[in-house]
Amino acid sequence: MRIPQRRTLCTGEKLGMIKVGINGYGTIGRRVADAVRVQKDMSVVGIVKTKPDYVAREASKNYRLFCSGKENLKSFSEEGLEAEGTIDDLLDDVDIIVDATPEGQGEKNLPMYRNKKVKAIFQGGESSGMVEASFNAYSNFMDSWGKDYVRVVSCNTTAMARTVSAVMNRFGVRKLDATIIRRATDPNDSKKGPINSVEPSLKFPSHHGPDLKTVLRIGEANTVAIKVPTTLMHVHVVNLTVDKSITEDDVNDLFKEYRRIITIRGKDGLPSTAQIMDMAREMGRKRGDLFEIAVWKESIYANNNTLRYIQAVHQESDVVPENVDAIRAMLQEKDRESSVDETDRTLEIRGKT
Amino acid sequence: MRIPQRRTLCTGEKLGMIKVGINGYGTIGRRVADAVRVQKDMSVVGIVKTKPDYVAREASKNYRLFCSGKENLKSFSEEGLEAEGTIDDLLDDVDIIVDATPEGQGEKNLPMYRNKKVKAIFQGGESSGMVEASFNAYSNFMDSWGKDYVRVVSCNTTAMARTVSAVMNRFGVRKLDATIIRRATDPNDSKKGPINSVEPSLKFPSHHGPDLKTVLRIGEANTVAIKVPTTLMHVHVVNLTVDKSITEDDVNDLFKEYRRIITIRGKDGLPSTAQIMDMAREMGRKRGDLFEIAVWKESIYANNNTLRYIQAVHQESDVVPENVDAIRAMLQEKDRESSVDETDRTLEIRGKT
Repeated sequence: MRIPQRRTLCTGEKLGMIKVGINGYGTIGRRVADAVRVQKDMSVVGIVKTKPDYVAREASKNYRLFCSGKENLKSFSEEGLEAEGTIDDLLDDVDIIVDATPEGQGEKNLPMYRNKKVKAIFQGGESSGMVEASFNAYSNFMDSWGKDYVRVVSCNTTAMARTVSAVMNRFGVRKLDATIIRRATDPNDSKKGPINSVEPSLKFPSHHGPDLKTVLRIGEANTVAIKVPTTLMHVHVVNLTVDKSITEDDVNDLFKEYRRIITIRGKDGLPSTAQIMDMAREMGRKRGDLFEIAVWKESIYANNNTLRYIQAVHQESDVVPENVDAIRAMLQEKDRESSVDETDRTLEIRGKT
Repeated sequence: MRIPQRRTLCTGEKLGMIKVGINGYGTIGRRVADAVRVQKDMSVVGIVKTKPDYVAREASKNYRLFCSGKENLKSFSEEGLEAEGTIDDLLDDVDIIVDATPEGQGEKNLPMYRNKKVKAIFQGGESSGMVEASFNAYSNFMDSWGKDYVRVVSCNTTAMARTVSAVMNRFGVRKLDATIIRRATDPNDSKKGPINSVEPSLKFPSHHGPDLKTVLRIGEANTVAIKVPTTLMHVHVVNLTVDKSITEDDVNDLFKEYRRIITIRGKDGLPSTAQIMDMAREMGRKRGDLFEIAVWKESIYANNNTLRYIQAVHQESDVVPENVDAIRAMLQEKDRESSVDETDRTLEIRGKT
């Protein structure tokens, strides 16, 4: 039972822009909203917030506000914020909803979207089993073509899918072994830990390996995740077994072809995630975001069938362009190359620093 | 021996915009450059960098680059960056230089500026003895009127001068006791500590109390500084003995009159510096800067002659508007009120969240 492309009339004519709702305006939701807003073929109808906090206040300057439930309407008006209605009202007026609610909440919201016959994108915290496809623009864009319920994989999986699929397309990849050094929490959180310890995933592989397989056809994907007390970025130590003999120059040339991957150099003043995030701020994007995966040039090591490199991942923003592309795939709006080109152009993703 | 106002002809006519050079493009220099750039009465002639790193690369998109010395010119060209000359060349073409070089370097640079007959602003890391005046726009703007060598006090002193001078002007302040919980280092630094300890200043008072007295006529200023492992902001616990009996409403009303002071609420989702910095990012300023001193409303306690409050200070940016105003004072360009109005308007400092 496919949801009809609501934007298409019986005659096949299109009805202007894709109408997008954003449910959840946290780390991901706010960034996807701003990214959708600058697309020519999409518009943000409104965003859903639960609390009338400082985030809602700033959001209200750019977006129509909706509450998660009627019981919250009063709390908004008490804070001088006008919520135009509830998520129920918003769903009546959108072609697709981007669900960026906390992990696990998306699954609870799915019946509501089904009931309203609205397409929905979920984030990486939800399980792959609840959707028709998992999404990464580089590795499996077409799997989501025309689908109603899709999940954009997590920041870590997105990062691995980008660089590994680039290598795979050119050289073939048999096996991935990766150590994921995870940031503890996002910069706007002061509650979670760890603050002074290192916490390994005690399952092998960590969930990232299997998750990668939902978007990339790879034989073996072994991952270990280690949580460390930092909020800036994740870092991945990637070890690939490739089909063809490969050189470091091959890899440098290869990554240049993908705008969402950049190579950086420690000798350029970028020895750690602290300076990479500073570079992102200097680039002048809102919130100092870095949509690109940053691979340290010095870390690229190639020898016959072995390729190793270290990459840094801005967990707050790398999935943002993916959400935009997923919308286009689900609405059958543009093919992969056109969508990625347009997203990168509008978000000023240029592929080099 | 006053340096002539180079921009003024014998007839008293003005020669267009104030020509500003920036020596040192670190945390403060880059922000002052961007702030000067948006003023109608000033322009950035060029910036001085020592290394051709990622910061120089980003800077070159907006500014003419100059090297700190001839010996560095080659290293820039090797990295594909064009430096137009050295600081010597830049000094020939500016009315005033903002020295934002590392602590102690400003004093070494002073003879060079004297020699070139160029006015100079130094930052809070330099000693007050080497300049004609220390500067804070709220507390002593006119002390720098027409002066050649001025120091904008540090981020911490600037923050205290702002809120304490506001209280002093209305209610009189006899004594300040403050505990300054200092951030360890700036977000783009990964070398300095402490990373997991708390480090008190072992001198009493810390240098902040005496420093405050260079810009504010206060009888007693007792400060203690405690360094903690965070990079986001400083936090001040301020305890004032005031001349007149004072209420919490008085203080709330008072702070509303000063745009560079904002009151925030923990209950608005802002219990810590993590969320305050997130709010600043949402406000959409470049680099997520917060020029304003943020006072927690819940922390304001007033009882007879005692006033206590807690404020958070974005150490990377609170001195930026002060540097702009100091330029105008030294060039006798605008009076205090006009300068502060213009700076706040151009930097979008609106006095409320």
